Amino acid sequence: MANILGHSLTISSFGESHGKLIGVVLDGFPSNQIIDLKYIQKQLDRRKPGQSEITSSRKENEDFEIVSGVFENKSTGAPICILIPNTGQNSKDYDALKDIYRPGHADYVYSEKYGHRDHRGGGRSSARITAGWVAAGAIVKQFLENKYNIHIQSVVSRVGDIGVKDIYSLNWDTAEDNLLRCPDSDCAEKMSSFIRDIANEGDSVGGSIATRVLNCPVGLGEPVFDKLNADLAKAVFSLNAVKGLEFGSGFAGTYAKGSENNDIAGTVRNNDGGITGGLVMVKT
Amino acid sequence: MANILGHSLTISSFGESHGKLIGVVLDGFPSNQIIDLKYIQKQLDRRKPGQSEITSSRKENEDFEIVSGVFENKSTGAPICILIPNTGQNSKDYDALKDIYRPGHADYVYSEKYGHRDHRGGGRSSARITAGWVAAGAIVKQFLENKYNIHIQSVVSRVGDIGVKDIYSLNWDTAEDNLLRCPDSDCAEKMSSFIRDIANEGDSVGGSIATRVLNCPVGLGEPVFDKLNADLAKAVFSLNAVKGLEFGSGFAGTYAKGSENNDIAGTVRNNDGGITGGLVMVKT
Amino acid sequence: MANILGHSLTISSFGESHGKLIGVVLDGFPSNQIIDLKYIQKQLDRRKPGQSEITSSRKENEDFEIVSGVFENKSTGAPICILIPNTGQNSKDYDALKDIYRPGHADYVYSEKYGHRDHRGGGRSSARITAGWVAAGAIVKQFLENKYNIHIQSVVSRVGDIGVKDIYSLNWDTAEDNLLRCPDSDCAEKMSSFIRDIANEGDSVGGSIATRVLNCPVGLGEPVFDKLNADLAKAVFSLNAVKGLEFGSGFAGTYAKGSENNDIAGTVRNNDGGITGGLVMVKT
Amino acid sequence: MANILGHSLTISSFGESHGKLIGVVLDGFPSNQIIDLKYIQKQLDRRKPGQSEITSSRKENEDFEIVSGVFENKSTGAPICILIPNTGQNSKDYDALKDIYRPGHADYVYSEKYGHRDHRGGGRSSARITAGWVAAGAIVKQFLENKYNIHIQSVVSRVGDIGVKDIYSLNWDTAEDNLLRCPDSDCAEKMSSFIRDIANEGDSVGGSIATRVLNCPVGLGEPVFDKLNADLAKAVFSLNAVKGLEFGSGFAGTYAKGSENNDIAGTVRNNDGGITGGLVMVKT
Repeated sequence: MANILGHSLTISSFGESHGKLIGVVLDGFPSNQIIDLKYIQKQLDRRKPGQSEITSSRKENEDFEIVSGVFENKSTGAPICILIPNTGQNSKDYDALKDIYRPGHADYVYSEKYGHRDHRGGGRSSARITAGWVAAGAIVKQFLENKYNIHIQSVVSRVGDIGVKDIYSLNWDTAEDNLLRCPDSDCAEKMSSFIRDIANEGDSVGGSIATRVLNCPVGLGEPVFDKLNADLAKAVFSLNAVKGLEFGSGFAGTYAKGSENNDIAGTVRNNDGGITGGLVMVKT
Repeated sequence: MANILGHSLTISSFGESHGKLIGVVLDGFPSNQIIDLKYIQKQLDRRKPGQSEITSSRKENEDFEIVSGVFENKSTGAPICILIPNTGQNSKDYDALKDIYRPGHADYVYSEKYGHRDHRGGGRSSARITAGWVAAGAIVKQFLENKYNIHIQSVVSRVGDIGVKDIYSLNWDTAEDNLLRCPDSDCAEKMSSFIRDIANEGDSVGGSIATRVLNCPVGLGEPVFDKLNADLAKAVFSLNAVKGLEFGSGFAGTYAKGSENNDIAGTVRNNDGGITGGLVMVKT
Repeated sequence: MANILGHSLTISSFGESHGKLIGVVLDGFPSNQIIDLKYIQKQLDRRKPGQSEITSSRKENEDFEIVSGVFENKSTGAPICILIPNTGQNSKDYDALKDIYRPGHADYVYSEKYGHRDHRGGGRSSARITAGWVAAGAIVKQFLENKYNIHIQSVVSRVGDIGVKDIYSLNWDTAEDNLLRCPDSDCAEKMSSFIRDIANEGDSVGGSIATRVLNCPVGLGEPVFDKLNADLAKAVFSLNAVKGLEFGSGFAGTYAKGSENNDIAGTVRNNDGGITGGLVMVKT
Repeated sequence: MANILGHSLTISSFGESHGKLIGVVLDGFPSNQIIDLKYIQKQLDRRKPGQSEITSSRKENEDFEIVSGVFENKSTGAPICILIPNTGQNSKDYDALKDIYRPGHADYVYSEKYGHRDHRGGGRSSARITAGWVAAGAIVKQFLENKYNIHIQSVVSRVGDIGVKDIYSLNWDTAEDNLLRCPDSDCAEKMSSFIRDIANEGDSVGGSIATRVLNCPVGLGEPVFDKLNADLAKAVFSLNAVKGLEFGSGFAGTYAKGSENNDIAGTVRNNDGGITGGLVMVKT
């Protein structure tokens, strides 16, 4: 198993969805930075299932505790370990699953690979594990915002075939005002009804998320194997249900001619997603 | 700069497009394996520009030399270093570029990042660098084929809006019969004319490549951060012009309902691209 | 900070001596192995200070809890996280240290490096941290013993200038019978009195430890940069008070002529410490 | 095999003593630094065998070529590949060795590990390989000297039982004046005669080297697993014949009482070798 991500800043993930707790160790974080616990809680609350009728009804606890690396609300430079107890999970719910494999889940392949399966739930393959990543990410996010004014934002841009038009022209701050976290409130309404209908049929549906990073310094990334887009791709595909990823004009750009699609240094058409040769090209 | 890719098997890349040579070190390759030089040359010849009127007319030399790690045609277990001289490149062609930045290239951002730019050409950002990866990959490919009967195949599936239907149902071995390396010969013909027309306009166009791996063992991959799809994504986005990547039903699958799209263990609908929870699910 | 050790099998260490707990994540451990909790406890009890009048009188708690990676007493292949609460430490004992730096400790240099010091104790530099390593090591040790009959043993070979003669000819199993863990019981007695006398003067003294590994497979290690001795050296110097390390005949061998000291393949004089060119030479 | 050393700055080593060439890739080196080729040649000349009657009489070529990463005498930020041809080696000299294993060499264990042995010489286990490390080290050394005034110096402190007294009180710059590179010229003379005598007997002898680093910044190193002494230990034991390593007062210090041996913050007794808790303690 490989449970560590990153180079100079790493997260080391542990815990199973139906064990006592899940957790994460954030290593390489600079010392002397103020750690705002409320900011972390807010990010964890955004992630948790059971927030509304349009998400999974599963309840998960998101109380967290930092057990190392922070002293008097400041980082010490030591690894920051965050623990999140699993109080909400009920193993008994899963007893029926002891001998069956759920479609679209990793149950079957885990049995094949490890010869020993914790049938109480998804275990390491559960999306529950990402709560630790969110907590560690929240520490890094507040640091990037406070120190460098770098803002990483993600919004829902499409659910099924209900998609937002010109999403980069909208005010993304409004996305927090609706359950969907979509910056187009009309679209958000339609998406909600659609999900409710699908859920009533006992079914689910996919969609798309758009992400942008503001104030990324020019030249961030490495030009050959740790291209910024390559490292982001590795991180994004580490999320459980992701099946596709595009940068800038993405697949649409590959239908276009070079004269229509190629970015020119210093301009902001952004068909390259702001990244050229693996490096950030334009500070936005 | 980060010029090493992989964990237990690594490639370390070096050289610039207009320096004396480019090269690669393949480390972690098992000892006592027969190395077929003709197989390597064939893969290098497939990559090289200037093969036909529909590719870049730039000529590149693909003669290679293995200077370590192979003795009497067998790998010794030592790192395999492959050198490819840059005889075809002509720095003078690029003198005009000394003070300008080419659109869609990394010239500008390199200057910003390193404060010192080799204006003779793309340098490290040139696609020429991938010749070394192809040579190292050819050594690994022949090993996987001979030892495990694992075959990695890639074909052109679309150019502009000329796309192949049902590409996975075709015989991919026929793709080598046309310049496009497309398994549908009618499509290949149309793609060729289209590219010729575009080229006559002094323009270029994008497209898609489909890749499949036959006989991959069930359970290959790691379930959390080194998911097979995540590691493949990192490698794929290390290629210069890649702007999008999908697995299985990809973006199309995100328009569908879960009941329509989710794979069931042991079945071969393959909407997950054969990978569930980061691990290979079905041996194909 | 760098808190992760190892390549395919890693330990990730976290926690401070005066925080809530210390812990370790063991990643890469194979699935389906029986984990004997008593074996782990025994190793932790061996390490803990306060066991007798000849060690530090500081009391430390060694209760541990495995919170992930083990299900029904077997490893699952997931990362194994072990937590050890810090109940025995008393921060108040250290209040007097808020503004002073202890000799031979890292207090001063931590302040310089991080600009923020947890004055409650050694923090990350405390030998308390090694309890986590012992727990993780105990899991690996029982695996090596059960599966490969590989035994790693360490004994005290010298305290001040009281040294054991011909230590490799003695029965090391008897070392557990005395407080010193020295395989020569007469020497152990003398060492004990000596330490008691030194301690009565309010002083301390150094010494040597001898380690051997039985049944190590021939060829273990890597020949260039991950030589077995180089990797062991890195691990050994990670222990707080280590100031010197020798393999085989060590420094003594460097006073000798080559004809006297060099091992010959297949013989057991063992002046090379069983390692030649970074690789295990003879199975002992 | 593991042929890469380092974290943010890495060297990747390749080549065999009797292949066409040996080489090294230095990656992570900053851009825009002047590279003085004469400095590199001088370091390579210091290393090469056959310089005098008191070293191995084997002749080795030390001509080198930088084939990437340097443009117009400045580093570009790209990986720096250095090639050193093996013109001096004569494989025929080794034909007699095809079926025998040399004492103190890794021939036997290589055969066991790889099942395929290049009998022409030491191959990867040859000290010849370190020429590449010296070349890469020379680039880093000139950078440390020019940019940070950090000087790394090594001298011979003992041969057999002829040892220099108070070596740290001598002027080490004088060491370059004699063949031994010993800062005490009388001792150097005695060492030379001794080695000549031993060599006339067809034998060899060991010794010690002392190393110091001037102007190392306080706090350099990492406090837990990448302690400066631990990383140095790994590097030092990567050298072929090293069998022991001490820091500061080393083994001698372990015979002493704590009151005699422990360094106090800010003082220069230096029994800890300038490193406390893995971090540089005092700038010297």
